[in-house]
Amino acid sequence: MTTDTLSDRILNGERRALARAITLVESQRADHRAEAAELLDQLRKSGRQAIRIGLSGTPGVGKSTFIESFGMFLTGQGLRVAVLAVDPSSARSGGSILGDKTRMDRLSRDPNAFIRPSPSQAHLGGVARRTREAVSLCEAAGFDVVLIETVGVGQSETVVAEISDLFLLLLAPAGGDELQGVKRGIMEMADLILVNKADGDLRPAATRTCADYSGALRLLRKRQQDPDGYPRALMVSALEEAGLTKAWEDMTSLVNWRRENGFWDRRRADQARYWFEQEVRHALLSRLETAKARSHMHQLGDEVAQGRLAPGIAAETLLAALGQD
Amino acid sequence: MTTDTLSDRILNGERRALARAITLVESQRADHRAEAAELLDQLRKSGRQAIRIGLSGTPGVGKSTFIESFGMFLTGQGLRVAVLAVDPSSARSGGSILGDKTRMDRLSRDPNAFIRPSPSQAHLGGVARRTREAVSLCEAAGFDVVLIETVGVGQSETVVAEISDLFLLLLAPAGGDELQGVKRGIMEMADLILVNKADGDLRPAATRTCADYSGALRLLRKRQQDPDGYPRALMVSALEEAGLTKAWEDMTSLVNWRRENGFWDRRRADQARYWFEQEVRHALLSRLETAKARSHMHQLGDEVAQGRLAPGIAAETLLAALGQD
Repeated sequence: MTTDTLSDRILNGERRALARAITLVESQRADHRAEAAELLDQLRKSGRQAIRIGLSGTPGVGKSTFIESFGMFLTGQGLRVAVLAVDPSSARSGGSILGDKTRMDRLSRDPNAFIRPSPSQAHLGGVARRTREAVSLCEAAGFDVVLIETVGVGQSETVVAEISDLFLLLLAPAGGDELQGVKRGIMEMADLILVNKADGDLRPAATRTCADYSGALRLLRKRQQDPDGYPRALMVSALEEAGLTKAWEDMTSLVNWRRENGFWDRRRADQARYWFEQEVRHALLSRLETAKARSHMHQLGDEVAQGRLAPGIAAETLLAALGQD
Repeated sequence: MTTDTLSDRILNGERRALARAITLVESQRADHRAEAAELLDQLRKSGRQAIRIGLSGTPGVGKSTFIESFGMFLTGQGLRVAVLAVDPSSARSGGSILGDKTRMDRLSRDPNAFIRPSPSQAHLGGVARRTREAVSLCEAAGFDVVLIETVGVGQSETVVAEISDLFLLLLAPAGGDELQGVKRGIMEMADLILVNKADGDLRPAATRTCADYSGALRLLRKRQQDPDGYPRALMVSALEEAGLTKAWEDMTSLVNWRRENGFWDRRRADQARYWFEQEVRHALLSRLETAKARSHMHQLGDEVAQGRLAPGIAAETLLAALGQD
């Protein structure tokens, strides 16, 4: 299939063409990279935008159930929904968090939903690029909402936050000291904290957890891109499909406010510039990733850690050696 | 003065020699850099270690008063105390936060204290290196405690945390929504949060603030390098010199626990390796800092931000141009 045909079929919203294009952007082959660049350049002109929603939460908070419920809620509103995942660990575990589509049984059969498992790529830089490009493809294919799930490994939240328009943190109810599982820095990226499982016996604990996090959010500095009252914590029950209307209302209010006040466009422009600069830095620093450079760096690092060499002198030694290659 | 003489005088604890050596490590001149490297290499062999304490807090929390009181408390215990500052903004403001030594009137006249204002350097990388080297000089000069103050601009807290053995966050009492001033990410680096001004009318508010932050700290994930009960929040009054004994007891308990459990040495070794790797990356990325590269990057960044060019293609263009220089 030519790039032109593929491009037309994506703009037409054809799911198989979209799936094929995502496979293309995931490839590392040089000819595939060139083809992907051409395709993305053609599709960029469509100017279509989705609401990109990043979603984070530790295992056990009910992320799959939430995506299924929330996705079905959105398609029920007449919206088309794509679900992607950022999972730099999947290379190690050999699987992918969304691979088991049976966990999203209803959503995966919904014609207005598109679920794409995370590919096996070890490198966070590669995962970031692939996800950004897959998001662009979904936007060109006319999806209204793109959900980007992260498993909370390493810096994947930062990647997702820099791709998303909104960032959601999903939590489970817990009491007192059990609440310690939130990763440092994640709470501070959240636009909305959703306390899931606010149903049955867990409802009182969810209420308390929600109040605790509301309190903690108030301790953080107000961000320029937020209207009054954001970021906020809400209760939902993915199981009972409760609280989803309110959560979606809050999301659209935030989106509309940011659109009206210029923060939406500014954030997208800042993100594009960020990714450009990241790609430049990534390419420069990749010179340290050759087997030879890594081995030399590790060896000098040992000397420095043991106090036998000053950091500055060791750095000069390494760079001189790199320059000679 | 030869490097040997300077080295001997520093090991002898002479303040003027120390001040002169810090001026040397602050210099950008190539011959000074070489001399500084030689000096640091000689002094490294002394093996002397201080307790390095990083201190952060927004303006108005009483940081100068705290440093004065806490410094006097430490010298009162027979300890020698050095005070340094990390202030990447001082190049802009033209001054330095510790420049006004009159704010630390008693401490600056104490023969067992050494206060060094922050130099005017715009570049955070330069500030980080200078501060690390100044800390090493103070350790060689036999100081028992090195206090490293940061003004909380940009990433200076991360720099200070990666230089310090302990990281303190100083807060002022506040009520409810006034508490929003804590910068994202700072709370999570703190080993101890000190709520200052726990005196007079502000005492009830300080008690409440301390309880709020104790609660917020419990929401964070427990760190491996902490014994039970850390990080914690405490009340102090720099003005009335109250709570300082307890704060110092908590610091020394934490230090002793980390020493006994191997975290002290491991952290120092990790920090040395971190700074080595940072220096390598810094030197590589400095190739983007030439006037020509910056101008080209800015121009391509504009194209990307306006959606006229994809980030990946723009990055390839820039790197190809860099390679031709």
